[in-house]
Amino acid sequence: MSDIRIAIDAMGGDKAPGEIVKGVVEASRAWPDLKLVLVGDQEVIKAELAKNSAAPSDSLSIFHASEAIAMCEPPAQAVRTKRDSSINRGMELLRDKKVDAFLSAGSTGAMVAAAILIARRSPAVKRPAIGTVFPTIGRPVLLLDAGANTDCGPVELEQFAIMGSIYSRAVLGQENPEVGLLSIGGEDLKGNDITKETLTQLRENKFLNFRGNVEGHDLFQGETDVIVCDGFVGNVVLKTIESEARAVAHMLKNAFKQNIFTMLAALLMRGALKKLKKTMDPETYGGAPLLGVNGTVIITHGASSHKAIYHAVRVAAECVRKDVAAKITGNLAALKKRHTEGLF
Amino acid sequence: MSDIRIAIDAMGGDKAPGEIVKGVVEASRAWPDLKLVLVGDQEVIKAELAKNSAAPSDSLSIFHASEAIAMCEPPAQAVRTKRDSSINRGMELLRDKKVDAFLSAGSTGAMVAAAILIARRSPAVKRPAIGTVFPTIGRPVLLLDAGANTDCGPVELEQFAIMGSIYSRAVLGQENPEVGLLSIGGEDLKGNDITKETLTQLRENKFLNFRGNVEGHDLFQGETDVIVCDGFVGNVVLKTIESEARAVAHMLKNAFKQNIFTMLAALLMRGALKKLKKTMDPETYGGAPLLGVNGTVIITHGASSHKAIYHAVRVAAECVRKDVAAKITGNLAALKKRHTEGLF
Repeated sequence: MSDIRIAIDAMGGDKAPGEIVKGVVEASRAWPDLKLVLVGDQEVIKAELAKNSAAPSDSLSIFHASEAIAMCEPPAQAVRTKRDSSINRGMELLRDKKVDAFLSAGSTGAMVAAAILIARRSPAVKRPAIGTVFPTIGRPVLLLDAGANTDCGPVELEQFAIMGSIYSRAVLGQENPEVGLLSIGGEDLKGNDITKETLTQLRENKFLNFRGNVEGHDLFQGETDVIVCDGFVGNVVLKTIESEARAVAHMLKNAFKQNIFTMLAALLMRGALKKLKKTMDPETYGGAPLLGVNGTVIITHGASSHKAIYHAVRVAAECVRKDVAAKITGNLAALKKRHTEGLF
Repeated sequence: MSDIRIAIDAMGGDKAPGEIVKGVVEASRAWPDLKLVLVGDQEVIKAELAKNSAAPSDSLSIFHASEAIAMCEPPAQAVRTKRDSSINRGMELLRDKKVDAFLSAGSTGAMVAAAILIARRSPAVKRPAIGTVFPTIGRPVLLLDAGANTDCGPVELEQFAIMGSIYSRAVLGQENPEVGLLSIGGEDLKGNDITKETLTQLRENKFLNFRGNVEGHDLFQGETDVIVCDGFVGNVVLKTIESEARAVAHMLKNAFKQNIFTMLAALLMRGALKKLKKTMDPETYGGAPLLGVNGTVIITHGASSHKAIYHAVRVAAECVRKDVAAKITGNLAALKKRHTEGLF
């Protein structure tokens, strides 16, 4: 299966098209057997390719789209009206099986809307979920849903647990990923109405390696591979983490600027801090998969640099190679059958 | 009003009774006009007082309680069966107006249960809420509810906003505290079913200085004084913040231990890092008020040191001095009247 084809939205993200095209050129050079398709304004893309000493070729082609969806546009409406946007066109390529994966650093809302409206949900999936990987002091954690669905019941949360397990096994290399349900304490009695109902359901699911409730304190321990929550909680948690990281960095920077001694310390710490920053860099995790749609869809951070795009291409290829989307469809169909037949 | 009387649970918390009694002795020396009452095993407390060169007196007395509720006990059951526990006895002192405030570093669940069962909710309050103050790069933020109520509707959330505003004004010194509703984006359309309904209600409440939705990214900006959410989300967010802070501290420590240069840097940074740690120290904020009960109730972190207890005594006295509980009762009664009469 050497002919993995990946479409990349060249127009999405705060640093598009420059960083996007640069990252795609780097990925193309690293994995020449991938067929990469840049979607967007062809003149603009050609110019960016030239800046990176590259030109359209069989393995790095352009698919023209005359429009782009901005970050601030109402997502569903933008997808419905901007028919020739890079997000719509990329998602159509995926739907029509012209590519196996589509990735974008553009509007998350528009990507989710386009995935549902154009590529469509996998059979048996109630709601696609965004998975986000973040570094911890232990193993990296996959948290889902990170914001695609604000109100979820036990059925959705159980599906997220399964989709997350499949992704963790296939892409993050966890043989038997441990799954936790995000709650307000480790004990079974802790939680809100929905998590309590979900807990029972997850305990009975033999497909999962379910450890029970996990709480905020467990997030950075890195002992749970997949953490499940609704998209409201997931989004708040992930943005809180980003906000705190920025605040800490800001305060540390100030501490290093205090006087001549601390400035010297900053110099001495340069290497160690650089290494630390690298370990903690979310860009190496290759963006957030939108799980539960037909085909591989990856959404990267709006501020994605070329490095984030490069890794997102790697992860997209991995998803295709490991057949993540088909595995999700298969498992969820089996789950639905068991639920319908009342086997548990 | 010099005769402020505060009961302190001497048996609650991971470091009880040693750190608790030490903190209370320090508070007694700092503010000799306060009447402090240590609740718990009198022999144990006497011994701890002696260690701090103190003895029972008019301003620092002991109220004997033969039992203690452990962190792990089911809260409501423990409060119902351990009638002579320090938490029950302290809450009875509050109910009987023998003291004006009660504070504990013991089980949060037991404190909430005892407050509701013994001291009782203020008239018009549907659910008492735990407020937690945390430091940011701007002004400190009061987040509530931090975990007393897992499932909340718009009525509860509106009450939290009012109680939080009153506390922020009285204790945190914000003249006109800005209130935000925790959601997944700043725009009015962002949120889950409950936050969307709550948003409309908060916009119409003239008592509040309401700025609209805030998101995780805003938490550490310190531009909003009071952030409102249900206790499930609040608990997850606060524990996430603690978890990340611990992880960052762990990784920084490792970075400073890397080689001879980084070890020298650690020496040079000692003063600056100490100062930073002090700014970020949640112990100086004096614990979390349980708002919406009859009287002042303060819950401090289970790991509270003497310093946390010292500051909690200060905050408890401030709450009493500023009549926070009565102000909450008055404002919520007025709100209920407006709601009932359909004025908005």
